[in-house]
Amino acid sequence: MRYLLYYWPSIQGRGEFVRLALEEAGVAYEDVARAPDGVDRMMAAMQAPDAAHPPYAPPFLQAGRMLIGQTANILQFLGRRHNLAPAGESGALWTHQLQLTLADVVAEVHDTHHPIASGLYYEDQREAARECAKHFRAERIPKYLDYFERVLERNGSDEHLVGRKLTYADLSLFQVVSGLQYAFPHAMAALAPRYPRVLGVKVAVEQRPRIASYLASSRRIPFNEEGIFRRYPELDPPA
Amino acid sequence: MRYLLYYWPSIQGRGEFVRLALEEAGVAYEDVARAPDGVDRMMAAMQAPDAAHPPYAPPFLQAGRMLIGQTANILQFLGRRHNLAPAGESGALWTHQLQLTLADVVAEVHDTHHPIASGLYYEDQREAARECAKHFRAERIPKYLDYFERVLERNGSDEHLVGRKLTYADLSLFQVVSGLQYAFPHAMAALAPRYPRVLGVKVAVEQRPRIASYLASSRRIPFNEEGIFRRYPELDPPA
Repeated sequence: MRYLLYYWPSIQGRGEFVRLALEEAGVAYEDVARAPDGVDRMMAAMQAPDAAHPPYAPPFLQAGRMLIGQTANILQFLGRRHNLAPAGESGALWTHQLQLTLADVVAEVHDTHHPIASGLYYEDQREAARECAKHFRAERIPKYLDYFERVLERNGSDEHLVGRKLTYADLSLFQVVSGLQYAFPHAMAALAPRYPRVLGVKVAVEQRPRIASYLASSRRIPFNEEGIFRRYPELDPPA
Repeated sequence: MRYLLYYWPSIQGRGEFVRLALEEAGVAYEDVARAPDGVDRMMAAMQAPDAAHPPYAPPFLQAGRMLIGQTANILQFLGRRHNLAPAGESGALWTHQLQLTLADVVAEVHDTHHPIASGLYYEDQREAARECAKHFRAERIPKYLDYFERVLERNGSDEHLVGRKLTYADLSLFQVVSGLQYAFPHAMAALAPRYPRVLGVKVAVEQRPRIASYLASSRRIPFNEEGIFRRYPELDPPA
C-alpha cells in the first residue's frame, strides 16, 4: 500500500514530522501537494463532502480507506504500523506523551512570530513578536530542553528517548532541535553545552542512513520564513 | 483500582477534561492536589527522581504502575479502559484526532490572555491580549465551530461527534463550548444560531446523569480568572 501525505508543498511545517517517519519507515508515499496540481487535490480531499472523517487542517494521511489527521495522531498510527514505537501500552503511551510535549514546543515556536494572530502578517505583529521571542528564548527553550535532557538521563541514553530503539519521538526531537537551531542560532549556541544528550539524539537521527539520504535529497524542503521555524534576526539577536 | 489525578487544585484548566472523563466513567479517583498537602504531593510526584516517565506538567494520572501525562494521551487511555471511545482502530484514531483539535482551541484560548508570555501577568500584556482576542473572536472561534458543526452534520447527530455513543471528545467539546461561553459571552451569543449541533452536544453532555451530578457538586471548580477560560470584559466587549 502506498500512503498519500497531504501537506503544504513549500514548507517543512508540521508535515515534516510525518515525512520523517515515512522516510525512516522506508515506505512508499506520495507527497501529494508537491505535484503541479497538488494543492488543489489537497483542498479537494480536505473538503470532500463525503469524507466521514474530515481533517481540520493539513497534514493528513490517506492510508487505505482511512483518512487520518493531526500530526501526533498520524505518528501514533505510523508508529504502530512500522515499528516506530513500543508495541506495549505503557511504552506506546509514553512515546505519544513525549510527542505531544514536542507538539507544544512547536505551537509556541509558531507563536514567537505570530503572537497576535496567525491571520496577520509577521510585519504587522513584529513588536509583539520581539517580546514573545525574548521570553521564549530565555524561559521556554531552557524549560523544554531541561525536560528532554532529564528524560534522556532517566533512560540512560544519548540516542533514544524511549528504551533502546528508535521511536517517532526521536525523529521529532531531531526536527525540533534542528528547527530551534535554525530559528534561534545564537540562543541555541549558548545553550548547547547544557544539553549533550538532546544534541546526541539530534546527531544520531541525522546519521541514520535513510534520514541522511532524505536530508540530502530534494524531498527535504529547506527551512524558510514561511514555515514554523523562521530565522528573523530581530527575534534572536547576538548576546 | 483507584486513579490518582494530579492537577492544580483551584482551576478547571486542562485537568478538567480528565475530571469529566473520570466522572462519566464512574470510576474511583482522588483529585490529589485538592487535599491540604496536595500540591506538595503533586510536585513530589512530578519531580520524583525515580520516575521512569516524568511528566512535563500537570495534569498527569497514576493508573496502577503507570504515570501518564498530556491531557489527550490520558483521555485516550481512559477512553480505551472505560468505553469512552470506539474500540476499533479507525474510530479510536478519529476520536483522538478530534480531541487534538479541541486541544488546539484550548491553547489558542490561553493565548488570548497570555499572547506574549505565560510567565508574565495578564496586566503586563493586556494591549496585546486585546488584539489577540479580537482576532480570536472574529476568525478563530467561527473557524473551529464551523468545523465541529460540519463533523456533527457528517455524523448525522446533534449529540455525538463519533457514531451513536458518547466519547471523551463529546465531553471535551462540552467543556470547550462552556468555557467559550464563559470567557466570550457576547461573541458566543451572537454565534450561537449558526451552531445548533455543537450546542446540542453541549446540552446533551450536561444532562447526562453523572455529569449533571458532577457539575452540581463541589468537585466542579467554578470558572475563574486563574484558569484557561477567563472572563475579562475588555477581551469580549458588547457588539
